[in-house]
Amino acid sequence: MPDLAKTADGEPDAPSHDLIYGIDDEPPVAEGLALGLQHYLTMFGSTVAIPLILSEPLGIKGDAEKLGWLIGTMFFVSGITTLLQTTLGNRLPIVQGGTFSFLTPVFAICGMASLKSAGFEVRMQTIQGAIIAGAVFEIFIGYSGLVGRLRRFIGPITIAPTIALIGLSLFPFGAPGAGKHWGIGGLTILLIILFSQVLRRKHRAFELFPVLLGIIGAWGVAALLSVTGVFEPGHPAYTSLEKFHDAPWIRVPYPLQWGMPQFEVAAIIGMLAGYAASMVESIGDYYACARMSGAPIPDGKTINKGIGMEGVGCLIAGIFGTGNGTTSYSENIGAIGLTRVGSRRVVQYGAVLMILLGAVAKFGALFTTIPEPIVGGMYCALFGVIAAVGLSNLQFVDLNSPRNLFILGFAFFMGLSLPAYISATPVALGPLLDGWFGLSIGDSLQWLDNIVNTLAGTSMAVGALIAVVLDNVIPGTDAERGLTEWQKAG
Amino acid sequence: MPDLAKTADGEPDAPSHDLIYGIDDEPPVAEGLALGLQHYLTMFGSTVAIPLILSEPLGIKGDAEKLGWLIGTMFFVSGITTLLQTTLGNRLPIVQGGTFSFLTPVFAICGMASLKSAGFEVRMQTIQGAIIAGAVFEIFIGYSGLVGRLRRFIGPITIAPTIALIGLSLFPFGAPGAGKHWGIGGLTILLIILFSQVLRRKHRAFELFPVLLGIIGAWGVAALLSVTGVFEPGHPAYTSLEKFHDAPWIRVPYPLQWGMPQFEVAAIIGMLAGYAASMVESIGDYYACARMSGAPIPDGKTINKGIGMEGVGCLIAGIFGTGNGTTSYSENIGAIGLTRVGSRRVVQYGAVLMILLGAVAKFGALFTTIPEPIVGGMYCALFGVIAAVGLSNLQFVDLNSPRNLFILGFAFFMGLSLPAYISATPVALGPLLDGWFGLSIGDSLQWLDNIVNTLAGTSMAVGALIAVVLDNVIPGTDAERGLTEWQKAG
Repeated sequence: MPDLAKTADGEPDAPSHDLIYGIDDEPPVAEGLALGLQHYLTMFGSTVAIPLILSEPLGIKGDAEKLGWLIGTMFFVSGITTLLQTTLGNRLPIVQGGTFSFLTPVFAICGMASLKSAGFEVRMQTIQGAIIAGAVFEIFIGYSGLVGRLRRFIGPITIAPTIALIGLSLFPFGAPGAGKHWGIGGLTILLIILFSQVLRRKHRAFELFPVLLGIIGAWGVAALLSVTGVFEPGHPAYTSLEKFHDAPWIRVPYPLQWGMPQFEVAAIIGMLAGYAASMVESIGDYYACARMSGAPIPDGKTINKGIGMEGVGCLIAGIFGTGNGTTSYSENIGAIGLTRVGSRRVVQYGAVLMILLGAVAKFGALFTTIPEPIVGGMYCALFGVIAAVGLSNLQFVDLNSPRNLFILGFAFFMGLSLPAYISATPVALGPLLDGWFGLSIGDSLQWLDNIVNTLAGTSMAVGALIAVVLDNVIPGTDAERGLTEWQKAG
Repeated sequence: MPDLAKTADGEPDAPSHDLIYGIDDEPPVAEGLALGLQHYLTMFGSTVAIPLILSEPLGIKGDAEKLGWLIGTMFFVSGITTLLQTTLGNRLPIVQGGTFSFLTPVFAICGMASLKSAGFEVRMQTIQGAIIAGAVFEIFIGYSGLVGRLRRFIGPITIAPTIALIGLSLFPFGAPGAGKHWGIGGLTILLIILFSQVLRRKHRAFELFPVLLGIIGAWGVAALLSVTGVFEPGHPAYTSLEKFHDAPWIRVPYPLQWGMPQFEVAAIIGMLAGYAASMVESIGDYYACARMSGAPIPDGKTINKGIGMEGVGCLIAGIFGTGNGTTSYSENIGAIGLTRVGSRRVVQYGAVLMILLGAVAKFGALFTTIPEPIVGGMYCALFGVIAAVGLSNLQFVDLNSPRNLFILGFAFFMGLSLPAYISATPVALGPLLDGWFGLSIGDSLQWLDNIVNTLAGTSMAVGALIAVVLDNVIPGTDAERGLTEWQKAG
């Protein structure tokens, strides 16, 4: 337990003091596997969600087999890249998985005139080409040390809104998902709160597995109500094992499974915006993960290695063809915060599960039977904790300085407000500039539009950019900005 | 200036140390009037926005004369109630004005079957009846001391998300407004940042009037570009004095100007939800305003008097017929944070301006010529500061406690997520329960739907409710919860 009196006096002590397993701790194998399964489950929702979202633009919405393969590939690649990141990368206990920041450029690629009448394979190959090319760029940014050198401009005033906005900006996925059926969605939330906040003092199982137990509890109730006929097919919380029975046992994803990648300049440039957003998000994740798992504040070298390895992960994702890249996974940082298990070994157990279960089609199919309200309920509990991890960086900052309050508030507000504007009114520079000074631009600036729309449409990219610029431009002392206390705590 | 080294060590010192004018300070009359004008301007946007939004359901959208009267009435009543609140109420420097939390019940009233074919006057009279009846309820809650007695359950963990969500939840009104024309909207933002954060050290005028000067600067540029023909009529930043020339000079609003109020039970019950949301918001505002203006943390008596007086204000609004109530105005707390002028006298100057200019139709009409991008730009700067004022309460809280992080994060996340759900899927209990246990409910539960939808659709009500329940239910020490340090700072 942290020394609360001391903390209340403002002397910061890392949350690691309160961890059950720190970054280098190794729990017994059985417990570690179960904890790893919990990481697997917390990354499950988004990892399944991304292929589902992509199925429409890729043109495989009705094709359950291809969609199943795509889901399996996502898990398989996530497992491989997580193992790489935790051993040869930044070595933080951070799960690698698909990224929402690649969705906008992928939509743009599928909408390109040249791909309008193309089938699934050609679209996928063009996406793969763009992801592979972008991966080379990210590998360069990382291993050249460019990223780490930018670190000295980044303090807690930048980190706080960046991380908090990762969690907050996911608000459309929480209650709207749980609300598909508030009985089951609300039960999931209640069980997770009960296990993680109240019963954790009573039994070690609750302390370690609040999320997993919460899901199983709500899932069991949903299954019972489905079997007894209270929930009928089509009900949002209806639980059936049909998809499980239909699935084959084994299907191992392999490189170039959709054919040879194709490289198109417009596709590649649009994708770079997704990479930029993903890198800023990852740096925020590293700080959050380090704080949560009791690791030291990431130095330049750690960040370089992490971003470089994320580039390698994207290269692998591009070669296998997930239709997406890989990045650090915020959900799992939330899980570390809730469970207070920050062990790297546990994440590696989870990664092995991802690889195995990515190849065992039946097992993946089992988890696709988790009804949407349960996934939404889990998000409500996890995403909030990510937001709070961001806020916890404010303990280093002078919260009575008008300068700091302006920068923080403006970054938070615009981080929500600008994406709301962009989603309603995407930037189209060509038509805007057409005719100015006799220009005839037309659609030739679409690549720039893609970059601007992706960055300005991503909450944490907006918040990070505003905070880092204003924090370095508006005069303020190191103590005021929180740099002094922050370095000490690291 | 605050002692920054001391603050960095965690010893909280109130922002009041950094104020130019504290709550009891009285600036020279001319300067006070100019500062009061700035308060008038910051409340201008929402005060004009509410009648504009109401014009559609009230059926006076094309009726410029009635709409003009309604706007004038809003200002007139705001001025009277602000004077009452600052003299006989909680005596905080807090502007009283219209409230967004009354919009949902007013929409519901205008949509009632009995009013479908009624004209403007009958609709307005029914709204007035509901507001008057609700006001009696609020006066009772306040002066009976009920509100103040609930105060002991409220600590910084509740106050932080409540206030922060007031600012954050207004995100759809910031960038989307400024983005109607980024040139002018962005210029407004840049000027306010430049004046309030950089040039304030150079000249006292920038220190005192960053918002007013920012508006005037951007307004001047917009006017210049309109006069020279670069902005043509219909352009979002087009500035013209037409509305000013057309308006009459004087029109004094008077009680019962739309006829006798009508009292309908369904309308009254729906309106009570708006009152509940407005009261929780106001309590948050009192804490924020007190922190900003250097007043002591509001005690039970102050809160009772404040809420009671807000009830009186709503009674006056109902009798005059603004189509809305009055509540404490968050925008002006943002203005106090930016200008560091927390003087009660300045707010009273502003109130006198509201009364005078509410009766001078021409002056109100002048300000309706401020183009929308400038108002949006001003919101971006102000609403963020409100969010940050909320966050500043976190300095008292142990930000390494998993308990606190869970409560804060969950309250923030659900504060954004639940309203997103409600706006897409309003609760309709009647149809839901119909048929259960042989019930036949139909539309008879619409009053309850209104209450649930209004509360669950209001970010800060959701955040406040979650935080106050969990903070009082989940075990935690007073030091951990920040109560110890917070009381000391008060």
